[in-house]
Amino acid sequence: MKNKYQKYLDELIELLKIPSISSLPTHKKDTLKAAEFIIDELKKINFKTELFYSKKYGEENHYPVIFAEKISNPNNKTILIYGHYDVQPVDPLTEWLTDPFNPEIKEGKIYARGVNDNKGQLYTHIAALKELDKCWGDNWPVNVKIIFEGEEESGGETIEAFIDENKNNSLLKADVCLVSDTPWINKDTPAILTGLRGIVYTQIDVKAFDGDLHSGEFGGAVRNPANDLAFIISKLKDEISGKILIPNFYDNVKDFSSNERELLNSIPETEKQFLKNAKNAKSTFIESGYTFIEGKTVRPTLDVNGMWSGFTEEGAKTIIPATAHAKVSMRLVPNQDPEKIFELFKNYVLNIAPEGLDISVNLIHGGEWVSTSIDSDYVKIAQKAIKKVFKKEALFFKEGGSIPAIAKIQKALNVEPVFLGYGLPDDALHSPNEKFDLDQFFGGIDCNIEFFKLISKS
Amino acid sequence: MKNKYQKYLDELIELLKIPSISSLPTHKKDTLKAAEFIIDELKKINFKTELFYSKKYGEENHYPVIFAEKISNPNNKTILIYGHYDVQPVDPLTEWLTDPFNPEIKEGKIYARGVNDNKGQLYTHIAALKELDKCWGDNWPVNVKIIFEGEEESGGETIEAFIDENKNNSLLKADVCLVSDTPWINKDTPAILTGLRGIVYTQIDVKAFDGDLHSGEFGGAVRNPANDLAFIISKLKDEISGKILIPNFYDNVKDFSSNERELLNSIPETEKQFLKNAKNAKSTFIESGYTFIEGKTVRPTLDVNGMWSGFTEEGAKTIIPATAHAKVSMRLVPNQDPEKIFELFKNYVLNIAPEGLDISVNLIHGGEWVSTSIDSDYVKIAQKAIKKVFKKEALFFKEGGSIPAIAKIQKALNVEPVFLGYGLPDDALHSPNEKFDLDQFFGGIDCNIEFFKLISKS
Repeated sequence: MKNKYQKYLDELIELLKIPSISSLPTHKKDTLKAAEFIIDELKKINFKTELFYSKKYGEENHYPVIFAEKISNPNNKTILIYGHYDVQPVDPLTEWLTDPFNPEIKEGKIYARGVNDNKGQLYTHIAALKELDKCWGDNWPVNVKIIFEGEEESGGETIEAFIDENKNNSLLKADVCLVSDTPWINKDTPAILTGLRGIVYTQIDVKAFDGDLHSGEFGGAVRNPANDLAFIISKLKDEISGKILIPNFYDNVKDFSSNERELLNSIPETEKQFLKNAKNAKSTFIESGYTFIEGKTVRPTLDVNGMWSGFTEEGAKTIIPATAHAKVSMRLVPNQDPEKIFELFKNYVLNIAPEGLDISVNLIHGGEWVSTSIDSDYVKIAQKAIKKVFKKEALFFKEGGSIPAIAKIQKALNVEPVFLGYGLPDDALHSPNEKFDLDQFFGGIDCNIEFFKLISKS
Repeated sequence: MKNKYQKYLDELIELLKIPSISSLPTHKKDTLKAAEFIIDELKKINFKTELFYSKKYGEENHYPVIFAEKISNPNNKTILIYGHYDVQPVDPLTEWLTDPFNPEIKEGKIYARGVNDNKGQLYTHIAALKELDKCWGDNWPVNVKIIFEGEEESGGETIEAFIDENKNNSLLKADVCLVSDTPWINKDTPAILTGLRGIVYTQIDVKAFDGDLHSGEFGGAVRNPANDLAFIISKLKDEISGKILIPNFYDNVKDFSSNERELLNSIPETEKQFLKNAKNAKSTFIESGYTFIEGKTVRPTLDVNGMWSGFTEEGAKTIIPATAHAKVSMRLVPNQDPEKIFELFKNYVLNIAPEGLDISVNLIHGGEWVSTSIDSDYVKIAQKAIKKVFKKEALFFKEGGSIPAIAKIQKALNVEPVFLGYGLPDDALHSPNEKFDLDQFFGGIDCNIEFFKLISKS
């Protein structure tokens, strides 16, 4: 028996067939095609639509923001919906059991690249709007604005600049921002996200000579930039306590109350499950005084994301490398400021670095944290919608990742985000065999409808 | 006016045209052709010649040792000559001003890959033997054995195994081993090398998970193998004193007498010249209590030769790497034992490594140090030969590099090496535009003749 929303599943499948991989220039046409597809669907329910590039970055090497709106009455509440139409690359392709761009349904799950992140979740919004249009016709009791970006997986510069360029006019003015790019705890446990971490992503480049040196001829009398970079990295975080050693790094970190910590730690996830999810990690490593759940959500972090120097092939080459490099990123929490943290980081690295080296420390990108209150009216509406549709109580939780666009919407536009997503932890985002449960997709459509209806009555 | 040894220069040029790059399988035929060329020349002066592979490694992926001998009288002194017929690769080819395998002579210097290292130096021996043959005819007053390897630039397994396999028979028995693979201090300062360092080259592999993790989702609750490897590396050598921190590492390191140190430091090289030679290093970094000359020659070292982990391309990828890797080598001095040092290193690394990681520490290769006495009769003969031919006093010096084959000859065969080479420090070994001064080549032939004659009379 077909689901009453089969039509929307068919539309989603068409959208999933478009390989809108924004990070690969060879998929430029596909990525733009995905934007056109969505615009066409929104036009069918009489949304005013437009594609915006930013003034700051322009069109070249960038993808437009889809902006769409249906304004019935200036006195209605205005809901701004965020999502993205681009997807991650598919490599390693050999690990996929199905064609990533030829969606297949197996055992109640649909498999395709981007089906969770974010096309399937985004389509719960479009489907809900279409259903509501049938019901509300020419007289919508809420105003809706849509802002879907096309480079969430490849930098996100356009949307951030676009928001900055429009923060002082009414274009993006709204009462709440609905975001579905988030998961549940597990299939029995719906969740409403109340926080995301910010990020500062840096690169350290160390140079000692104009070229590699022979380690026999020069070893013992010159610096070694690889040893020196290792020394610098070793001084960033305490090996025992896990504390970050940059002076003043923790100055503005918010302490959570014991109630808040209890709530956070009530998430039904054991350390054993966590280690298994962490691709069979043998042990946790957590800042002393905190639980693994706190460590991965509300405490700031510092991690090397990559490092390289000298000879990295098989066998031996007896050189002292001329240069050494590391990517180091920090996840930030309320109320740390990315710009200030980068300055602290940079100054500290330059300060502890041995003399006799050329060192540069550069910011690759930064983004603010997000925090929402569980006492917010809109969060309470989201709770009610979930309970009505799924017959389950949503838990509040925080995510360790970052969505800089949402932080921007919250801070530059002063619009409160509500995270109402339907993903599951095993959906394999960014990995082979990405999937989305049909129950979640169909339920998500109903939940969206309920959320809109409740706001219209609030 | 042509030099009296023009004929040998012409022969050398033919040898230089053969691109005998042993590390590149595409040059296998060329490398074997270079061996055949040398054998043909030695046959012309009635040397008994043979190509030997080792039993241990066989022929596949290996190059033979050229063994040749002319034994006139068992009571004569026997000189064993070491050299190698293979050369380094030529990349980056764009930096060469001439074709590396089409030798050109400019301003008294011959430019070609391998012209110093080691074909030109090796040919001073062959040319000298040819001249001596004219003089000595059927009644040589010395016995000569030759051992030229073809994989000095690519591992050197065959010669080491070959020596081990013949250390208990008379094949390689000799009174002295003549080695020309060494430089002078500068064109005005001939030098006799009296020491080489040994080497232990290792690889550390750290694994924390079965695949990379999302740094937002997992950061703050799991180990980071890149941070952990940096921590391990930072504990190998003291950042201030330059002392290696592996317990018992220095136990067997020989202290040099103040006389020996004075002699060593009398080499005419300023710190400023050294830094310029070190590709414009901004500063030295020397074990405290020692000079830069001691640091690069008679003190043991520890250097990272390469390291890699995680994301190393342009931009940002927010991962916690699954693995991290480093190549770490140590140069050893009298009387450190490579096997024992590797054990100390391995145990220390495993001991300081954080728990919750899979770590392996492997030996890639090892080689012994070499030390010769300046009071040796053969060293004195080399001194005399240099003085007679070049009208200059040779200095004694030590090299920080390693020639494992020579250590093997000294230790397994109990044959004393004498280092009588004619290279100059700016000959660009292993680099683009390698050269050899014609004065050094022609003078080297005479110096070899003199060395042989003096031994015949000793």
